[in-house]
Amino acid sequence: MADEFSTIHRYFNRQPQAVDLGIGDDGALLRVSEGHQLVVSTDMLVAGTHFFHDADAYAVGWKALAVNVSDMAAMGASARWATLALALPAVHDAWLAGFSAGFFDCAQSFGVALIGGDTTHGPLNISVTIMGEVPTGQALRRDGAQVGDEIWVSGHLGDAALALAGLYEKHPLQADALTMLRKKLETPQPRTALGLALRGVANSAIDVSDGLAADLSHILHASRVDAQIHWSRIPRSQTFTHHVPPNEVHEMALAGGDDYELCFTAPAARHEQIRLLSVKLDVPLHCVGNILPRAGEASQLTIVGENHQPIALSKKGYNHFA
Amino acid sequence: MADEFSTIHRYFNRQPQAVDLGIGDDGALLRVSEGHQLVVSTDMLVAGTHFFHDADAYAVGWKALAVNVSDMAAMGASARWATLALALPAVHDAWLAGFSAGFFDCAQSFGVALIGGDTTHGPLNISVTIMGEVPTGQALRRDGAQVGDEIWVSGHLGDAALALAGLYEKHPLQADALTMLRKKLETPQPRTALGLALRGVANSAIDVSDGLAADLSHILHASRVDAQIHWSRIPRSQTFTHHVPPNEVHEMALAGGDDYELCFTAPAARHEQIRLLSVKLDVPLHCVGNILPRAGEASQLTIVGENHQPIALSKKGYNHFA
Repeated sequence: MADEFSTIHRYFNRQPQAVDLGIGDDGALLRVSEGHQLVVSTDMLVAGTHFFHDADAYAVGWKALAVNVSDMAAMGASARWATLALALPAVHDAWLAGFSAGFFDCAQSFGVALIGGDTTHGPLNISVTIMGEVPTGQALRRDGAQVGDEIWVSGHLGDAALALAGLYEKHPLQADALTMLRKKLETPQPRTALGLALRGVANSAIDVSDGLAADLSHILHASRVDAQIHWSRIPRSQTFTHHVPPNEVHEMALAGGDDYELCFTAPAARHEQIRLLSVKLDVPLHCVGNILPRAGEASQLTIVGENHQPIALSKKGYNHFA
Repeated sequence: MADEFSTIHRYFNRQPQAVDLGIGDDGALLRVSEGHQLVVSTDMLVAGTHFFHDADAYAVGWKALAVNVSDMAAMGASARWATLALALPAVHDAWLAGFSAGFFDCAQSFGVALIGGDTTHGPLNISVTIMGEVPTGQALRRDGAQVGDEIWVSGHLGDAALALAGLYEKHPLQADALTMLRKKLETPQPRTALGLALRGVANSAIDVSDGLAADLSHILHASRVDAQIHWSRIPRSQTFTHHVPPNEVHEMALAGGDDYELCFTAPAARHEQIRLLSVKLDVPLHCVGNILPRAGEASQLTIVGENHQPIALSKKGYNHFA
């Protein structure tokens, strides 16, 4: 059986550029540009919680990095470097080959260099820390939403949640629909170009990983504001509309998680500029609501239904300990 | 039961200084000094592999950060920031209170700010990524050892391995000896002051986490040199000498792991300077051998015994998949 050091070397030792010292020492050495802030985020994926035990290794590798790249997009940062800590029950060459291929394909797609890591024996666990850069003061934060801002969402919501339901066989899906939806669940495409383009345009941003209701609530809480969004304006795919029964659409689109779209707020005066950005980047952008002054002690999100009645979600978003 | 977000907030949301944006957004924002390189390292600790399932939570929290701080020391870097990803089977308040106390005590002792993290449901797993700074070009790397360098080791080796053997009841230890040794195993003190002082003095350095034989071999391999070390010069504590039977001393001192001392190489002309440094810092430093030209295709470490015969280790160092 391969030992720890040859495992690292064989699958993960691709020396990246623009790094003064990469994998293989006690630490990596990075050049950091003047006038920029370093942005750091970390995400942990656990088998059985974040992906199926029998999930495709390539997809797991892709997603482990992609969810972190998405955090950089949500900060308006350029993703630059990542570390990978990996606990494995055993060394399975086929799994590692697939996982590393997915990880590095994602790294290459989004310009990220793997600069360090750790492999250890234990229940399958993947922990990635990503570092990016943003010009000083230009990061898109959660606490910048202003009263009067419009709330925007990229892409479509709920497709990943529908894919998960399809894989659990809770929703019978046609093979081609499942294939398309699985791709969105398993190999998400972080909105990096959009994140960069929103610098100086958006007042706040977050990536939609736990469902729009939960993630937008983080913005509201951090910015001490309320918001109203309209169900009719929530972007859903044709496949979603076709397959999800009416009694589940709200939960799945607003509390489903794993979308990795961006939710951001911007002054109403920027509306046309954002519409043009949508065309330029070829990314669907929908204005779904507005930021309001805070009425009570805690920030409140109101979801207005098609009958103008508020929609209550039984489950606000994915919570690991709920 | 507490949810994910309140868990984070309650135990880990201590906003650090010198950070433009800490925990609670998609990423943290760091100021990085001009003329410095950022140094990044990551370590993952798994219950059952790196610590006992019933280990003291405070000690686990301390050690999770300390092993990363030790990597910064081995690079000659100032530890600055860390992220923490934590998988937990359930939210146990007492455990989290102890763990976070140990983590933050270590953070405060070594000037590290926790700037981000992730908590998730799963088998207990702790992944820490640390970031530090070093003046550009001054990092202590593994690949800098030169023929003629002397090899130095800080502190004593083997105490942590003896503690582990004592806890497994393989070695009956007196209560006070076990208490002292356990402290070295469970709350190691990274050699940060030494690491900083070795900038411009040492040609190469590594922290001794897997046992001196394995870790020194990493230096030899990276630097393409051989080395000879002398068993009689390996620093061992009185407790170690008193308790370990002769047939186990070599393995335990040289391949035991978890010492978190520094091993470094420096020109022989620096010998007196290093002796003075030892006094000034109150850190025992022992010269244990020399760097030699590489004789064969692979780097070779020779351990010379008291009878001038080479010592062979059956187990070179801790390996998670061996």
